[in-house]
Amino acid sequence: MMQPSDKALVPFVSVDNMMRLVHHIGVEQMITQIAQQIDSDFKRWESFDKTPRIPAHSPHGVIELMPTSDGEAYGFKYVNGHPKNTSEGLQTVTAFGLLADVYTGYPTLLTEMTMLTALRTAATSALVGSYLAPKNASTMAMIGNGAQSEFQCLAFKAMCGIDTVRLYDTDRNATAKCAANLQERGLTVVACQTPEDAIEGAQIITTCTADKKNATILTDNMVGPGVHINAIGGDCPGKTELHRDILLRSEIFVEYPEQTRIEGEIQALEADHPVTEIWRVMTGQAKGRTDDRQITLFDSVGFAIEDFSALRYIKNAIGGTDFYEPLDMLADPDDPRDLYGMLMRAQ
Amino acid sequence: MMQPSDKALVPFVSVDNMMRLVHHIGVEQMITQIAQQIDSDFKRWESFDKTPRIPAHSPHGVIELMPTSDGEAYGFKYVNGHPKNTSEGLQTVTAFGLLADVYTGYPTLLTEMTMLTALRTAATSALVGSYLAPKNASTMAMIGNGAQSEFQCLAFKAMCGIDTVRLYDTDRNATAKCAANLQERGLTVVACQTPEDAIEGAQIITTCTADKKNATILTDNMVGPGVHINAIGGDCPGKTELHRDILLRSEIFVEYPEQTRIEGEIQALEADHPVTEIWRVMTGQAKGRTDDRQITLFDSVGFAIEDFSALRYIKNAIGGTDFYEPLDMLADPDDPRDLYGMLMRAQ
Repeated sequence: MMQPSDKALVPFVSVDNMMRLVHHIGVEQMITQIAQQIDSDFKRWESFDKTPRIPAHSPHGVIELMPTSDGEAYGFKYVNGHPKNTSEGLQTVTAFGLLADVYTGYPTLLTEMTMLTALRTAATSALVGSYLAPKNASTMAMIGNGAQSEFQCLAFKAMCGIDTVRLYDTDRNATAKCAANLQERGLTVVACQTPEDAIEGAQIITTCTADKKNATILTDNMVGPGVHINAIGGDCPGKTELHRDILLRSEIFVEYPEQTRIEGEIQALEADHPVTEIWRVMTGQAKGRTDDRQITLFDSVGFAIEDFSALRYIKNAIGGTDFYEPLDMLADPDDPRDLYGMLMRAQ
Repeated sequence: MMQPSDKALVPFVSVDNMMRLVHHIGVEQMITQIAQQIDSDFKRWESFDKTPRIPAHSPHGVIELMPTSDGEAYGFKYVNGHPKNTSEGLQTVTAFGLLADVYTGYPTLLTEMTMLTALRTAATSALVGSYLAPKNASTMAMIGNGAQSEFQCLAFKAMCGIDTVRLYDTDRNATAKCAANLQERGLTVVACQTPEDAIEGAQIITTCTADKKNATILTDNMVGPGVHINAIGGDCPGKTELHRDILLRSEIFVEYPEQTRIEGEIQALEADHPVTEIWRVMTGQAKGRTDDRQITLFDSVGFAIEDFSALRYIKNAIGGTDFYEPLDMLADPDDPRDLYGMLMRAQ
């Protein structure tokens, strides 16, 4: 075996190493740090190449590529969305991602992103919550208790001061799983029998359900004044969670309108319905919540810059650690024009 | 460390394993087999989702994602193009690729593709040559003696009956490298001092140079009747190799016109200049070479289906071998909704 050069070896973070890294840093601490990276990157929004993700739809689900670049680093995520997978014992969403150096085009990081996407999605939600939720919010309704739910609860605890979560899912086993996982994490956990029960007294409502259809998780009469809605689950064409009337009563905030109008809750609205880009709130160019009775809605679909932030965070975090392994992924002959010679010498 | 399930483990072919596989099969044999896969996939052209590749341009080069799917498998390639890299001791082009199962969205193969791209590019060139080159062609001019050149020469030997190659490069060291690498491969190799000398007596002219600019490797008066031109190097906006007058005298064949009009030699022509899609020649729906004096031109830029074919070939070829290693790339908890529980149990 030939020894590949350093340039040919791409640091790879396996699922196992990602989990070790999370425990090394701490779940809430890591979510908070990723959120800080996202905040910092969203505040320089205009320095990024942005494009709606590139989907490959099939009757079974969707496979997407989400690239972006700030001119120095390039990142992309591969992610699938297959709601029917759960019934077959598979993940609805799996992902991996890559960072590369724009100057050379050489990859600099390959990492699992199923776990990392859960962390960055929770980080984004709570970061936006910290800008939009009512002051002194203490209770969150968590509707949909699947793979993302615990991460959401912990993120809002760490970043928005939530001390009570009220859980609801159409499947009681999912609620029981979520409640059990959140024991001894410093949260009061209430398992609820109905969505109405779950939102009782909540200042923040997070919806995160997975059906690929236009569902109505929240109806208009369920949502009182002053709440912040964090709508995560509606994230592709034909997949929404909220009744249209709620949208009409809400001040709507989005990541990247060009993508959200295709994939988010606002599919149900006119194409020119006013929305606010959340990065403008972060930089102070737009207002967030302006009064106590306002309903704020974060219509979140997930955007490539969040993955870029998470990838850069991981690249920094693994430096000097053993939470990665070098992957022999790039052919790198001594003479770059002599790829064939490299092949022959390997014999 | 937790033991990930089979579904979480993606077969990974490193550069080292790819080179072992090539030697196991044989270079010319493997190029020929990949060409057969490409031929078979091009003949079912209409069953593929096709899109021009998604580029991220910078002043230093380009990074591209090239996805495609036939509804059952999904594949994409990451590839960079940085002509300035060579002067810094790096590859102009590096690549890796992935196959996934459309039904689950789960990746099924990750592989280096720097070496594999060289093989599939040569396979595509010689496959098209087998449809378009004049009968009984025996001599090929190889202009540009970089990383792709030896693969091109061997492919045309294996698939088109070439027994003599005439090499030219502006850098004599590149020609010397190519000539040395082709010793004892059953080819008569002639190192030439000028492009005019190289094309002397050649029935096939392959151009494969790397400058990112509109260069004129061939001028009109250099190209006589009856030759087949295999133009590889012009493959992004502003990067061409042939004088426009040659194009006007040629019958032009392309992979995917939507992409070639942006990236190929035909950038220099009107947007409605007639070209023939090569898959139509393969299926018999369009004519290839129709007379001995015709100049045929394959304006090749590389297309995603070629990579898809190469990826599927590798996936089949590694079955039952040890030319890959399982990569712990996908989080796959026993209960798909219990990603957080998987994380906690890993502690």
